[in-house]
Amino acid sequence: MNDYSKWNLPEDRYFDPDPAQRRIAMELYKSAAHLPIIGPHGHVDPRLLADENISFGTPADLLIIPDHYVFRMLYSHGIPLENLGISRRDGGPTEKDHRKVWQIFADHFYLFRGTPTGVWLADELSNVFGIEEKLTRQNAQSIYDQIEAKLKLSEFRPRALFKRFNIEVMCTTDAVTDPLIHHQAIREFGWGDKIRPTFRPDAVINLLTPGWTNNIKALSKASGITVVSYKKFIRALEDRRAFFKSMGTIATDHASETAYTAELTPSAAEAIFKRALQGKAKAEDAKRFNAHMIMEFARMSIDDGLVMQFHVGSIRDHNDLIYHRFGANMGADIPSQSEFTQNLRPLLNKYGADSRLTFILFNLDESTYSRELAPLAGHYPAVKLGPPWWFYDSINGMRRYFDRVMETAGIHNTVGFNDDTRAFPSIPARHDLWRRVSANWIAGLVARGIVDIEDAKEMILDLAYRLAKKAYKIP
Amino acid sequence: MNDYSKWNLPEDRYFDPDPAQRRIAMELYKSAAHLPIIGPHGHVDPRLLADENISFGTPADLLIIPDHYVFRMLYSHGIPLENLGISRRDGGPTEKDHRKVWQIFADHFYLFRGTPTGVWLADELSNVFGIEEKLTRQNAQSIYDQIEAKLKLSEFRPRALFKRFNIEVMCTTDAVTDPLIHHQAIREFGWGDKIRPTFRPDAVINLLTPGWTNNIKALSKASGITVVSYKKFIRALEDRRAFFKSMGTIATDHASETAYTAELTPSAAEAIFKRALQGKAKAEDAKRFNAHMIMEFARMSIDDGLVMQFHVGSIRDHNDLIYHRFGANMGADIPSQSEFTQNLRPLLNKYGADSRLTFILFNLDESTYSRELAPLAGHYPAVKLGPPWWFYDSINGMRRYFDRVMETAGIHNTVGFNDDTRAFPSIPARHDLWRRVSANWIAGLVARGIVDIEDAKEMILDLAYRLAKKAYKIP
Amino acid sequence: MNDYSKWNLPEDRYFDPDPAQRRIAMELYKSAAHLPIIGPHGHVDPRLLADENISFGTPADLLIIPDHYVFRMLYSHGIPLENLGISRRDGGPTEKDHRKVWQIFADHFYLFRGTPTGVWLADELSNVFGIEEKLTRQNAQSIYDQIEAKLKLSEFRPRALFKRFNIEVMCTTDAVTDPLIHHQAIREFGWGDKIRPTFRPDAVINLLTPGWTNNIKALSKASGITVVSYKKFIRALEDRRAFFKSMGTIATDHASETAYTAELTPSAAEAIFKRALQGKAKAEDAKRFNAHMIMEFARMSIDDGLVMQFHVGSIRDHNDLIYHRFGANMGADIPSQSEFTQNLRPLLNKYGADSRLTFILFNLDESTYSRELAPLAGHYPAVKLGPPWWFYDSINGMRRYFDRVMETAGIHNTVGFNDDTRAFPSIPARHDLWRRVSANWIAGLVARGIVDIEDAKEMILDLAYRLAKKAYKIP
Repeated sequence: MNDYSKWNLPEDRYFDPDPAQRRIAMELYKSAAHLPIIGPHGHVDPRLLADENISFGTPADLLIIPDHYVFRMLYSHGIPLENLGISRRDGGPTEKDHRKVWQIFADHFYLFRGTPTGVWLADELSNVFGIEEKLTRQNAQSIYDQIEAKLKLSEFRPRALFKRFNIEVMCTTDAVTDPLIHHQAIREFGWGDKIRPTFRPDAVINLLTPGWTNNIKALSKASGITVVSYKKFIRALEDRRAFFKSMGTIATDHASETAYTAELTPSAAEAIFKRALQGKAKAEDAKRFNAHMIMEFARMSIDDGLVMQFHVGSIRDHNDLIYHRFGANMGADIPSQSEFTQNLRPLLNKYGADSRLTFILFNLDESTYSRELAPLAGHYPAVKLGPPWWFYDSINGMRRYFDRVMETAGIHNTVGFNDDTRAFPSIPARHDLWRRVSANWIAGLVARGIVDIEDAKEMILDLAYRLAKKAYKIP
Repeated sequence: MNDYSKWNLPEDRYFDPDPAQRRIAMELYKSAAHLPIIGPHGHVDPRLLADENISFGTPADLLIIPDHYVFRMLYSHGIPLENLGISRRDGGPTEKDHRKVWQIFADHFYLFRGTPTGVWLADELSNVFGIEEKLTRQNAQSIYDQIEAKLKLSEFRPRALFKRFNIEVMCTTDAVTDPLIHHQAIREFGWGDKIRPTFRPDAVINLLTPGWTNNIKALSKASGITVVSYKKFIRALEDRRAFFKSMGTIATDHASETAYTAELTPSAAEAIFKRALQGKAKAEDAKRFNAHMIMEFARMSIDDGLVMQFHVGSIRDHNDLIYHRFGANMGADIPSQSEFTQNLRPLLNKYGADSRLTFILFNLDESTYSRELAPLAGHYPAVKLGPPWWFYDSINGMRRYFDRVMETAGIHNTVGFNDDTRAFPSIPARHDLWRRVSANWIAGLVARGIVDIEDAKEMILDLAYRLAKKAYKIP
Repeated sequence: MNDYSKWNLPEDRYFDPDPAQRRIAMELYKSAAHLPIIGPHGHVDPRLLADENISFGTPADLLIIPDHYVFRMLYSHGIPLENLGISRRDGGPTEKDHRKVWQIFADHFYLFRGTPTGVWLADELSNVFGIEEKLTRQNAQSIYDQIEAKLKLSEFRPRALFKRFNIEVMCTTDAVTDPLIHHQAIREFGWGDKIRPTFRPDAVINLLTPGWTNNIKALSKASGITVVSYKKFIRALEDRRAFFKSMGTIATDHASETAYTAELTPSAAEAIFKRALQGKAKAEDAKRFNAHMIMEFARMSIDDGLVMQFHVGSIRDHNDLIYHRFGANMGADIPSQSEFTQNLRPLLNKYGADSRLTFILFNLDESTYSRELAPLAGHYPAVKLGPPWWFYDSINGMRRYFDRVMETAGIHNTVGFNDDTRAFPSIPARHDLWRRVSANWIAGLVARGIVDIEDAKEMILDLAYRLAKKAYKIP
């Protein structure tokens, strides 16, 4: 008999119900469940790992306040972010009592039924924190007590969890101007191979980013190259890449609203950059400069071997009110239509046939999976597809990705999984979900006679571990 | 043994074949199958309910002539609409013998295999009219006889069926200029809470609608406000909203080819409206005016509490020949690509954070489900998603909707079902299909360990009944 | 016990795992598995059938070198096409040792896991060539030996396989300027009803095709009408259609990046054509001329009864490097977004209501299936939908097609299957896969109570055989 006051975490969860497929899925899953975690892309704050004694704070600090997946759902039902303890830019009042924040969360936990956040949280609370009861309005404070008590223990410090989670490699995402002091501390601790920075230059590439001029100053300072021209700008970026590489970086990361690429002449690039330095860059300048720089980064990747990640399709900060009051990454980023076939043609014609380049595409427009992305990855040597991203980091999102990508691209033109998370304790839940859904998908192929079990056993190891390690050239 | 001369309506129809999932689906379905029907959006003619003694006419009047789902399929196989008894605008000859129309329908009934129309008709004929035999070329006239005989009985009058169907609320769709005399009769009968008008202003908003000037005259007459300016136009609309509200209206409905929204200055709105009154409005004027008025209606909804429905993406009257000969709503409306993320930004930035607004989106471009609509509904307090619409009011359409919408939006950012039908006797079949497909989807979540049965039992009540009632603020 | 060194070809392959559905699928499949093959569209070289004694060459000639599905996957993993024995346009060095080519293929056969190419090859090697062992790095040369030996036997000549494959009709695709000498030889052999040419005018319609002027000269020569004007051009095309028809042609085929249609005035058409003859046609000219000619071909089809096929959405030769070195059809064609609702409106308003026209649409943007294509086919008498094309000629591609198209269009607005292949020995594998996936889809409808088994038995015959024969008016 099930006890419905407990979390619902059956051993064979996320598998299709057919018993034959489920048996195969379980066999495959078991072969991959305990492999180390490879996390080549994510947003965990390296500060958490820089000091052995750092703690996560309160349960709300851990699970609600940093997780836009959680608070945007609560906001969508009319709960002000202030009530959830989110800091305002203007220092205005927000809820300080994290028990109240937690109570609101518990009161509305039914909103997460059937969502990935719902299943991650069940897994986290149960398997990381040992909370057996389902969260309800009634038991909210008692569960808060339990988590709070655990978070005080040394075995719930981030480094302890990192070991317990069996993470082999975790990459963070770091501004190009970042001095990487936390990563320096991590290296000194001897974990430099485990926790690696990623080179993210968006804030100096997008000429219209608020504070761009300050970012350029920071770049000058960080590189020691005074960025007074496009030429110097390129030199400063190359300098920073070299520094990041010396700090263990294996990849770069680039975000863009569209996938537009087009090369500028050196003089055109110089002219646009000058206008930007004078504060006179227009939207069209920013667009062309971004399109050009994506190509420049492909060139640099061929030179220095850093894997290039390209995230396309999010319209950031769609809700002005939220942006002005709370800033970026507040759950108000909304995807939009993407186009890759025409937009990437200039880049791919120049660099796509070069196997030294690994160009990993992430996107939020699933209609491009079968139409554009799988055919591109199934042709160009440089192109690989990243795992289903953001809203699609979910059971159905993964199923659609397998369904639409794999027949054309084959699994070897994909790069396995990455968790892309800010929420450190959700890492095992996310990788476990990927491994289960992968195992189920492959089991479906076996059950339908599309692959045999011998091939299936290779495929689950590829998807769970090997493809990520290989694509990201992890030593 | 099955008898294949009978309709095929197994008790567990539309459920996935896995026995475990099917058992759960049946349990959930049974808990919702007999709930009253909430129909907050549809196109039933209120005249049918205004008089106790009105009858549906012949079987062809009931099932073929008013149903563009049916006759467009026959037309696609080369059968002229004249042969199906559809009236021509020019009064030209059409088939008057409804037995001949019915015979054509029966001869081609195989065209509906695997279509929603096919399953609705099987359900209707069997469960509403007690016809046991499958419709064939051979038995067409005998089945005609049976339906004809039923239609003469008092228990097959619309009001009798309304009671038998257990409809709690049914909303019709009514022009803003409509005096609502049928609704007045309904109210006098004491059914005002059961059958409610919906405020639909498209014919006065779209400046290029044929007959717009006459529509404005009708608006002046209906409101008692002579609409000689934009300002008066707004006042007349507000007056009509107040009247509709007094007649039981709970919602407005707006249709648009695109989701484009943008506010005009009062003087720009006035200038466009003046051009329109002079018969000089251009396509660009109409587009900008529509974009502006959608925002105006959001403002009015915040003021008066009417729920706002927005139907986007149908290119109406695609086949000129059909439009000129037979008019609108003749099965020649074809969907086109939609964009919401950029188009709705002006409206959502102004009103989307206001919980007093309920802004329900319907659309015909399924690629926007996971890419734009679910993220918008999963963020903005005002946004909710309508059920799968029109071509997607089907088993697979619903499955795709659940699959792509729910992980990001959660079910509580959706509004349950509405039947959107002109075909009154199809109402129970349509709601039953939704309840079955919902039960099956939730059962799939249970079978996969994504939700537990306790949560599942809440979810089926939400989807079948509670969400619609809550979203439309039905008392 | 399975032997994993053997090909995995279970009798019930590609069926869903549920035992009940699988039993029905098997029953339906068996009723269609041995029907003759109707192949109304494909790219087999008619030369292969023109001479009884022609042979396929080596195993690499047979399975790798002509199959862009195969070599583009190898290329995507950095293997130069030269290493695969593909001829360079400049006569530069390519691998001549086909055993080395075969070894590379075997070494990388794991790339095809879960792909349609993988399952087709397993079926072909096993069922056509009697190779029992799975292809591996180790057994590559021994399997090469076995195939090579088979290819020397008379029963492995193309005509012998044509009979063994039980092909009733196979249409090739032929340039409008082709003298059809191979087809002449085939007719003389008495197989003119079995193997038919298809009229493909793209190379004279697309004004920017490299070598267009030479193509026009060839058209003049072939038709005996000196093409010095648009008027003569139309006459020459009509002459060639008459010739193709006399040679057994039943259909025309047209490819276009977009579905744009729009009629030119005779004088505008003449002016553009004159510019093209003078080598002065611009991109805009080519676009408008193509849009116009698609309409002209619809008019001609109404006159002469040839079925019109329209393939939309491939961006050809996306990789310049590959195009310059190896030419067209080298696995570097990438789909892009398509739009049909607006683009086809001019053509459909003029000809769509005319049942004499059969206008079959193929496309590579699956988001248009439910949004545009099924509604168009479900309304216009002239419109039918071709089977899932190219990247979607696959188990999942077919499943998505059935899922998204059939509820709105019904199966009778579709045209069954065609293999579209250049790879002659893959024909039975491809049709068998379609029949299996069709049977499984229909079985799913039966298992869900959507159709009964009586209707299902008709539907499988329709999808496997009758719809293609009827739509293409095959005598």
